[in-house]
Amino acid sequence: VRIQGSGAVRPVQRLSSDDIDRRMGRTVGWTASNFAIAERGVASGDETSSSLAAEAARAALDVAGWRAEDLDAVVGACAVMEQPIPGAATLVQRRLGLGDSGIPAFDVNATCLSFLVALDLASMGFAAGRWRKVLVFSADIASAALNFDDPEASVIFGDGAAAVAVEAAPGPSAMLGFRMETYGDGADLCRLEAGGTRVRPAPDIDAFLAAASFRMDGPGVFKATARRFPRFLERLMAGSGVSLADLAVIAPHQASAAALEHLRRSVQAAGDKVIDIFADHGNQIAASMPSALHHAITSGRLRRGDLALLVGSAAGVSLAGAVIRY
Amino acid sequence: VRIQGSGAVRPVQRLSSDDIDRRMGRTVGWTASNFAIAERGVASGDETSSSLAAEAARAALDVAGWRAEDLDAVVGACAVMEQPIPGAATLVQRRLGLGDSGIPAFDVNATCLSFLVALDLASMGFAAGRWRKVLVFSADIASAALNFDDPEASVIFGDGAAAVAVEAAPGPSAMLGFRMETYGDGADLCRLEAGGTRVRPAPDIDAFLAAASFRMDGPGVFKATARRFPRFLERLMAGSGVSLADLAVIAPHQASAAALEHLRRSVQAAGDKVIDIFADHGNQIAASMPSALHHAITSGRLRRGDLALLVGSAAGVSLAGAVIRY
Repeated sequence: VRIQGSGAVRPVQRLSSDDIDRRMGRTVGWTASNFAIAERGVASGDETSSSLAAEAARAALDVAGWRAEDLDAVVGACAVMEQPIPGAATLVQRRLGLGDSGIPAFDVNATCLSFLVALDLASMGFAAGRWRKVLVFSADIASAALNFDDPEASVIFGDGAAAVAVEAAPGPSAMLGFRMETYGDGADLCRLEAGGTRVRPAPDIDAFLAAASFRMDGPGVFKATARRFPRFLERLMAGSGVSLADLAVIAPHQASAAALEHLRRSVQAAGDKVIDIFADHGNQIAASMPSALHHAITSGRLRRGDLALLVGSAAGVSLAGAVIRY
Repeated sequence: VRIQGSGAVRPVQRLSSDDIDRRMGRTVGWTASNFAIAERGVASGDETSSSLAAEAARAALDVAGWRAEDLDAVVGACAVMEQPIPGAATLVQRRLGLGDSGIPAFDVNATCLSFLVALDLASMGFAAGRWRKVLVFSADIASAALNFDDPEASVIFGDGAAAVAVEAAPGPSAMLGFRMETYGDGADLCRLEAGGTRVRPAPDIDAFLAAASFRMDGPGVFKATARRFPRFLERLMAGSGVSLADLAVIAPHQASAAALEHLRRSVQAAGDKVIDIFADHGNQIAASMPSALHHAITSGRLRRGDLALLVGSAAGVSLAGAVIRY
């Protein structure tokens, strides 16, 4: 894969941590100091996953110099959909003026790692000679399912979208390595249970509403991922034939300030290569990693020919990472 | 791809069309005669997408003679998830006893065409040398979101699950052709709007509940797909280098009796090759196509070395098809 363009969009409305403290009757400054987040975007008005994603997609296509009609596929990579049917990719295809184009649109979901899995699948499609130009977007409206009575599972999240225009690279693949590990034993550590077919509004609407907020066992998920991370990273890097010292940047999922600090410690000397946009973006779920990647590009920290590590963890629990040449 | 094993599961509880008529105060026989469906499965008790899918998956693995530990990936291909976070593939991975295995699990969604898109992505992974053995499953609990006051958008659906164990084929790919076309202009023709991040329980619970049932403009979706189908099929078959006469079976999405009749007319002399399990399965959304494929295999209509056409339409609207050698 070769990333020819990228874009990232946050909602117009910002919510500061101090405003959350005021709303919840907490000491102003409590959220900012405990979670190292100043503010996050909150979708409002007509803003939805597909509207933000389409805006990010248009920006990515502009940078690539592509017309939307040139795409071979539109791949959605969101954690929680705007609506169950049809999927986000179809809605974004329509918003891009491609509603009568026939260009295939489908979605890929691996919660916070959706973007990385979709990018990997795009690389397989390129390797198989099936596609040349693909749009991959991620968008999540975390604010739809947050319970601010549970700070750890709410204040760290922000809404947003990001997209990349990716092309089959000439010559050997620009994806030097990819690794994903899923440990379903941790499926209850991060969960949003209502919204699918199991927990339904009828007959017990109160149980439904209780299950309609995201719930997280923070220490549990940290433990489940942290203990597996060193071996995972070692295998990913070994499979890529690249050392941490070779990287220009590490563009991680922005899980939390603590998770980013853990990552910096894990990669030791490469710690200053970690892109950290958490303080004013929050954890944007699937949109986090492509937003960090976009930031690495636009800030000039990732330049043509450079190597980047995309890496993160997700509900599942899953770990995934890729080494790409930009 | 080479399908080494398949399985299909329906819920224990059956709901007859006559029982629907009685419940809704209609003349007994009305639903059966108008929609050509006698009964369908309805999940009850502990039955969920992941429980039915795991049962289908175990059957598919048994037929293939594989241990679950041999898998390189677990790919979910459901239309509407059991719960938004984590995804169905993670839940099924855990149910298969793989919760500490690290085997990657992720989901692919193209509503009723999810299975076909996932199978295509598996074939790309094989072609790229990334995987050798993959489990693809589809499961949908349609009964969670049906409004029987709207017969056309409710009585045709049934719950179920199906899975296939697929392996990288030795030599040239066993997927001879694949084609997908998406027309997002039709995004409003089939929709389930509540359950994602746009339509929320608060502040208007009544609007939420109204949007929590599947809605379909039957004539609209038929028109949007039927007018594009002949050219789509012609291109798919031409790209596969196979004629309809070469096929042993056509295993379609079981959209409705009318859709299956339209397909039989469209393929003319090949009409008797169409697998039709609609009358006692209904439209099982994403699980329909793999259930039809499984039926083709177990009924002896599809034998080793035979060619099969998998084809269907989905919300979006999308059309997709693949020609595979079994």
